[in-house]
Formats: sequence, C-alpha cells, structure tokens
Amino acid sequence: MDLLDGIATTRAIRRYRPDPVPEDDLAAILWHATRAPSGSNRQPARFLVLRDGPAATEAKAILARAFRDGWGAKRTDHGFDRGSGADPASPKARASRAMQQFVDNFERTPVVVLACIRRWRAPHISEGGSVYPACQNLLLAARALGYGGVLSMWHGFVEGELRACLGIPEDVVIAATVTLGVPEGRHGPVRRLPLRDVVYDDRWGADAAWAVDPPDTRFTGAGPAREARPAT
Amino acid sequence: MDLLDGIATTRAIRRYRPDPVPEDDLAAILWHATRAPSGSNRQPARFLVLRDGPAATEAKAILARAFRDGWGAKRTDHGFDRGSGADPASPKARASRAMQQFVDNFERTPVVVLACIRRWRAPHISEGGSVYPACQNLLLAARALGYGGVLSMWHGFVEGELRACLGIPEDVVIAATVTLGVPEGRHGPVRRLPLRDVVYDDRWGADAAWAVDPPDTRFTGAGPAREARPAT
Repeated sequence: MDLLDGIATTRAIRRYRPDPVPEDDLAAILWHATRAPSGSNRQPARFLVLRDGPAATEAKAILARAFRDGWGAKRTDHGFDRGSGADPASPKARASRAMQQFVDNFERTPVVVLACIRRWRAPHISEGGSVYPACQNLLLAARALGYGGVLSMWHGFVEGELRACLGIPEDVVIAATVTLGVPEGRHGPVRRLPLRDVVYDDRWGADAAWAVDPPDTRFTGAGPAREARPAT
Repeated sequence: MDLLDGIATTRAIRRYRPDPVPEDDLAAILWHATRAPSGSNRQPARFLVLRDGPAATEAKAILARAFRDGWGAKRTDHGFDRGSGADPASPKARASRAMQQFVDNFERTPVVVLACIRRWRAPHISEGGSVYPACQNLLLAARALGYGGVLSMWHGFVEGELRACLGIPEDVVIAATVTLGVPEGRHGPVRRLPLRDVVYDDRWGADAAWAVDPPDTRFTGAGPAREARPAT
C-alpha cells in the first residue's frame, strides 16, 4: 500500500472479525509503531499487549465496563438519539449503532494495546509527543497489514482497577487504549474539517488560500452545534 | 513509497537545502496530517505555517534563539562533548555537530509549522492524542513527497514572545514546532531500543517472546548511562 494512500484512508475501525492477529503481524505492527520519534530519542513509550492470557481476559472485562459507561455517557451528552439521530438512517444513528456494538463486544476485541509512557518529569503536553506518534504509526502499520483499530481514552474510568490487574507501576501513564482486529463489514471514508479551517499562514487566524482539499475530500461539519459524528 | 517502508525510514531530518516547499506540496502534507484521528473527531488541532512572511520571519528569529539556548543547555547537560564525544568521529560528536548546524541555521529552515491545539478542558495527557498523531502523519507525508523534518518542543523557552508575535490566543497550546525542508546530505538509519524492551505481553513487564526485530534493525543503547544519541 502506498504511503500517502495509507495515511489518507486509515480511519477508526470498531467492528472486527473474530480472527486473532498472528504474532508475527503483531510484532511487525509494534516494530513500526516504535520507529516513531520521541523527545531526545528517550523512548519512554511501552506497549502492553492484551490478547487472551489470564490478565488480559480480566483487563478486557474491566475495560469493557469502562467503554460501556463511557459510550453511555457520551450517547446522552452528545445527543446521539436526538435531532437527526431519531432517524435510524441518519449518519448520527449509524454512528451510534457502530459505537454500541463496539462496546457491547469489547471483550471479544482480538487485541487491545495499552500505549503507556514512563513519566520522567512533571506532566506537560509535550510528553504526549513521545507516545502518540507511535500510536499513529501503529494504526497505519495495522492498516498496511489488513487490520484496523481505534485510539480511545475510556480506560480513564477504570484506571485504578486496570493498573492493579496488570501491575502497571505508578510512574507509568496509560496514554491510550488501542484496539486491533481484522475489519468486519463496510466503513465510511475519513471525514474532516476543510483544510482552510485548520491551517493558518504567517499569523494565527490568517487565511492560507493555498490550503486546498483534494476534490474527493469528505467533510465533517464544524462548531459545537454540528451534528454528532462517529467518535474517534 | 510503500506505507511500511515509509514508516520504517522516516527519521528526524535537521539539515535542509535552501529550496522552498511549493504550496501544493505544503497543502498535501497538511491535508494528510489532518487525516489523523482526534478525540470524538473534535479536530482541535491547528497548524500555523511559518515561511517568509513578515510575522514568520520575526517568529523564526525568536525560535532560533530558543533553539540555540535549548541545544546549548542540552549539549552541556547530556555531556555531548564528554566521554566518547571528545572523539570527533564518534556518533555522539556527529550528533552534536548536526544539532549545532540545525540551530545555527534555524532562521533559514524553509518551513516551520507550529502544531497547536485549542484546549477544550483541563490539561490532561490525552489531549496530545488529538494533535501528535497529526504531527506524525505530517512527517510521514513530508517523507513521501521528498521532505524531512523534526518535532521539537524548544518553543517552550520563548512561548510568551512567540504568542505575542503571532497572535496566538490564550486557550491555544503550542504542542510542537515542526521544521520542514528538502533533506541535505546523508542521514543515518532510525535507531531504537530492541522491541522486547518496550513491548509486554499480558502483564506489565512480562516478556513478549514474539516481539522480534527484523534482522537489519539498528539499535540504540538503553538506560540512563547510554551514550548520547541524536536528539529528536
């Protein structure tokens, strides 16, 4: 797969076939993840792979609860069942159904990777620069090998339990939960804001007239009043 | 370029030819950057592109000072001139020279992108998950189009001045400074820790015997006593 095509078409995948991910594919995915940069090449990121081992099975059950709670709260807060969401054929209702089946089946997610980081100084946004680039590489490499997944932060609801279950030390931050599996069914295109809404030239807020989207780009709406979209 | 090859070979590039980056390449790089995921697809990331406009010229001069100070401090703190660094042929001395020329020439960096994020809640590591994946996509797309760059956090030394110069609002966090240009000269391979040092299976710290590096992988040393390596 072409590098630019891969970047352009890697989207959140939340429905998986039951097929496991072979260990050599898993190794390749993680190897590519770890080619990402980190501050001073310090490499503080660690990847805890949960498959069907004893701790993993327990951890997936803990996470499943968190994901169900997380989605339940979001479904209400973001009004997924209101407005256009009342129409089962709407994008909002489809997104809602996709999320519901994702959390309902969480325990059967073939692979869950906890992307962690050893904290080496006081919390600061920049520490994310030493782990999230690797998460993106992970998702791109997964796509190259026929897998898909999604980055989520819902582990936050059960962090204490999860740490105890998996023996995660106190100086380690869980930066993301990444699910992985062979995609099941059809998935829509990547949808984003128009490029000119997010790129500025020379000064904050200054229009970048050259920041033109390719002709077949698919867009999301903008602003807080927009319709809810599939969550990442 | 192949997706996996691109991921495997994208490394920090700090020496650039003077060639500018044409606007259509810049648009393509940023479009691919913005295909990255963000929490709830909220898309809080913004990309401020600094080329040779009036504010950009001033901002680059401010950043150049920060980068020189940052590298100066690191050079001392990390002992780049001590130990093996005393030998001009050592990897440490080469890394040191590469960094010195990078900061000495900072004003001539063809493009500097400030990757920013609109803060929508209290600071938390997870907000980085909505901007750093895009930074990684940016570097990968740049590589696909023949450019290279590096993610840096040294803007932190001059953040107040930079914000004033560029009109960056208070609720916006500068997450990274990304430099871009056509690579000059030769650059070594990506070097990382052995995969088994950073991947765990089932429980924290548990060996993942299957996490095998491909035969031609290049490694860094490990632990605080390791030799200094090119910084990212």
